[in-house]
Amino acid sequence: MIDIQSQKDHRKINIQKVGVKGIKYPIIVLDKEAGTQPVNASINMYVNLPHSFKGTHMSRFIEVLNEFRGEINIRTFHTILEKVREKLHAESAHMEIEFPYFIEKTAPVSGAKSLMEYRCLFSGCNAESQKDFLVGIVVPVTTVCPCSKEISSMGAHNQRSFVTVKVRFRRFFWLEDLIRLVETSASGEVYSLLKRVDEKYVTEHGYENPMFVEDVVRNVAERLNGNTNLTWYSVEAENFESIHNHNAYAYVEKE
Amino acid sequence: MIDIQSQKDHRKINIQKVGVKGIKYPIIVLDKEAGTQPVNASINMYVNLPHSFKGTHMSRFIEVLNEFRGEINIRTFHTILEKVREKLHAESAHMEIEFPYFIEKTAPVSGAKSLMEYRCLFSGCNAESQKDFLVGIVVPVTTVCPCSKEISSMGAHNQRSFVTVKVRFRRFFWLEDLIRLVETSASGEVYSLLKRVDEKYVTEHGYENPMFVEDVVRNVAERLNGNTNLTWYSVEAENFESIHNHNAYAYVEKE
Amino acid sequence: MIDIQSQKDHRKINIQKVGVKGIKYPIIVLDKEAGTQPVNASINMYVNLPHSFKGTHMSRFIEVLNEFRGEINIRTFHTILEKVREKLHAESAHMEIEFPYFIEKTAPVSGAKSLMEYRCLFSGCNAESQKDFLVGIVVPVTTVCPCSKEISSMGAHNQRSFVTVKVRFRRFFWLEDLIRLVETSASGEVYSLLKRVDEKYVTEHGYENPMFVEDVVRNVAERLNGNTNLTWYSVEAENFESIHNHNAYAYVEKE
Amino acid sequence: MIDIQSQKDHRKINIQKVGVKGIKYPIIVLDKEAGTQPVNASINMYVNLPHSFKGTHMSRFIEVLNEFRGEINIRTFHTILEKVREKLHAESAHMEIEFPYFIEKTAPVSGAKSLMEYRCLFSGCNAESQKDFLVGIVVPVTTVCPCSKEISSMGAHNQRSFVTVKVRFRRFFWLEDLIRLVETSASGEVYSLLKRVDEKYVTEHGYENPMFVEDVVRNVAERLNGNTNLTWYSVEAENFESIHNHNAYAYVEKE
Repeated sequence: MIDIQSQKDHRKINIQKVGVKGIKYPIIVLDKEAGTQPVNASINMYVNLPHSFKGTHMSRFIEVLNEFRGEINIRTFHTILEKVREKLHAESAHMEIEFPYFIEKTAPVSGAKSLMEYRCLFSGCNAESQKDFLVGIVVPVTTVCPCSKEISSMGAHNQRSFVTVKVRFRRFFWLEDLIRLVETSASGEVYSLLKRVDEKYVTEHGYENPMFVEDVVRNVAERLNGNTNLTWYSVEAENFESIHNHNAYAYVEKE
Repeated sequence: MIDIQSQKDHRKINIQKVGVKGIKYPIIVLDKEAGTQPVNASINMYVNLPHSFKGTHMSRFIEVLNEFRGEINIRTFHTILEKVREKLHAESAHMEIEFPYFIEKTAPVSGAKSLMEYRCLFSGCNAESQKDFLVGIVVPVTTVCPCSKEISSMGAHNQRSFVTVKVRFRRFFWLEDLIRLVETSASGEVYSLLKRVDEKYVTEHGYENPMFVEDVVRNVAERLNGNTNLTWYSVEAENFESIHNHNAYAYVEKE
Repeated sequence: MIDIQSQKDHRKINIQKVGVKGIKYPIIVLDKEAGTQPVNASINMYVNLPHSFKGTHMSRFIEVLNEFRGEINIRTFHTILEKVREKLHAESAHMEIEFPYFIEKTAPVSGAKSLMEYRCLFSGCNAESQKDFLVGIVVPVTTVCPCSKEISSMGAHNQRSFVTVKVRFRRFFWLEDLIRLVETSASGEVYSLLKRVDEKYVTEHGYENPMFVEDVVRNVAERLNGNTNLTWYSVEAENFESIHNHNAYAYVEKE
Repeated sequence: MIDIQSQKDHRKINIQKVGVKGIKYPIIVLDKEAGTQPVNASINMYVNLPHSFKGTHMSRFIEVLNEFRGEINIRTFHTILEKVREKLHAESAHMEIEFPYFIEKTAPVSGAKSLMEYRCLFSGCNAESQKDFLVGIVVPVTTVCPCSKEISSMGAHNQRSFVTVKVRFRRFFWLEDLIRLVETSASGEVYSLLKRVDEKYVTEHGYENPMFVEDVVRNVAERLNGNTNLTWYSVEAENFESIHNHNAYAYVEKE
């Protein structure tokens, strides 16, 4: 059977990335408490394609995923990419893995336990001369507006805010630790289960710690600056403003 | 050229709805202030298909839309559906039109003007024995939690909330009037542009008018009960809770 | 601490549904091959609220979920709803659970194995006088256009199509069996991993079995009509047309 | 009234971007045929914030938008950003504007006319020392698989594909021209309205012009290389594969 993909191409155009996008796949990630956690991921995989080849062999990406089934995580990321490079005869390989991750939280006063979902990302590339790996998390928090609090005789507008942090790092770290750092850098934390005593606490605690999106990204950045394991970071905060139908947003990355 | 769609089908299964979904189309809707407003809609159109026919003629839906280009609105809705029935030899026809609609709002103290977007829906069907038409709106508002306010020594959690109202009615009405009714039934209104004096006002006003999702749907329902032009309604409110990562929700419809 | 939710309400408006929406939760569903399968679900839970009460107690929904952690599936669905009714002193309770579900498929010629994702839904309500439970699946398939094939001297347009089936039933059944029924009712099946011999097979097989969306819903409906375990069904097919930027759609439900 | 945002900040962290996201706004863009076209846009606006200031003044972004209402387009983009810089006392300003754009297309044989929607993007920044402006388009096309055609005795799998092109350029150009270039670089074009004679044509034309995603991005890149008005481009193609539940993807940018 003829191999169309391996035919010569004459347009002299190198393709930086070619591959498969939106593969839904169950993976097992490392969990600080439980050892492992099964999650439903969405995966993109690419390689480069030199100008002289007509096409890549898309099915091989899936074959590599299947080889690593049950072992796709932060520790095996580059091993998978090396396998992709080998199997597709490519100089560089890229992968992005997005997944939800659950952590049990304890309500601040009642001690009631519940599960919170965080969106996570592994993204990286692997080439002879260059390796890159980035971990991302999206953490929901509460922000209370300092301006609204200051100018109003009572109350202050507040809202759910999403803080996205991406980091490059030297040694393995736990997602849980980065998530905790973010959760404790905003006006307040978000929970799945709060009893009335907890609701009183989070309301008062938030009101006493008003923060703009600017404050949140700076608080997180300041603490990340103190972490010698990190070689790079970016921090975004996006407020689903309770008084507007658009969002407030701030972005800072390590300079 | 053979007409496959018109061939006989022997499976004896009537199809309730067959047609086209997700047609993007610019339409011009009626605007209380400006006369008309051009908007970018997404349209679904269906007919029934009796069991003896193999298929419908999908291109005719688009032809009907093109005939009414520039005249697709609340007043022509049933005329369009009748044309669809005629052109597709169908007993019943259905259409759903979703679009954003913009209204200029005035900030409560400064008087600063800005545009707010509301999501709207026209949905209906047309058959010999039955005509139905429903108008829907989605209105962003602010809700301040009565429980949080009551139990806390200061502050109260609050958030953006979306109120969805659908109505069946006797005589033409303006979207603007239904939207105003909803905006004035929550803890506070949402604006695109607020100066500091306005932010003080909306913060204090919201704090003085705490409401659960239950309160919002009841406030809207109570006022719709008093409107003799309406033959049916449903009201939903969904809070993007500032202290949780899930939403609070309430639904009521005319009994 | 005062219980605002339990206060009297005087607006005389019963609320049909009030509760929590979009709770992300890891659940373990029943798997025909493996016994169980851990998946990441999104859950909505509601109760009715009689007109005399101001509000419901939202945190109790989460408490019930936590009680059933690890045991939320098709068999325990009504037990959970009964617990919700009891704990929230409600007459009726509703729940919707959406989740991805993975099944290993075998390529038709090479026998290569890979995982396919299907979107699933459990939805139901529970009241003294009425119990309802509905299972839904979304199955990706291929459709080849019979008209395009017939009128063209070569080729035929084809596309990914999503078939959504919802059923009410008497006795437990496996999701796998309903999914297989749908996969074998279209022009062809969709796979994650196909080698070249498989791609030849699915191309030729699809070309030999052209179907409109109308054909797909009728094929599925005809086979569901023959299943005495089902008391009701609906079938939708939506083609992501390769020659249009909108979709073709058909819907049929048991008459 | 105290101006919290103007207070000193002591964390010594410059913020690269702070502003408003997801503002829905009706704008009027330039249309090659009709002169202008009213569309519903979604807009993000940011400025930098030096480390010594606590916060930015979010309402001023909306005020600038209001000043330019009816005149927000490719020609005024940098003027708007300069106004933002001035009004917010910022060194750099950024804006992203996404909108749908409609062009009337003519079916290839019948000459039937219909409207097609394309997603467009204006994105740029403005600082003393640096100005950037990028225009993007997303164009739906058809791709027919060359491998499937070659190895199969009849038929070939094909699907809707989205081609995203972003360009930096020297002189004004029409969106219409860039869109046409893309539409004529794939296996076939996508239309809203095709009569049977057209469907025969597009089926046969597509079958005679099979292309991988790799071919599509190379065809577009080759033609963009020949356009001296462009200083940079990127081209992506994403196939909604009819035989898989994931997508095939290729990306190339000017080297």
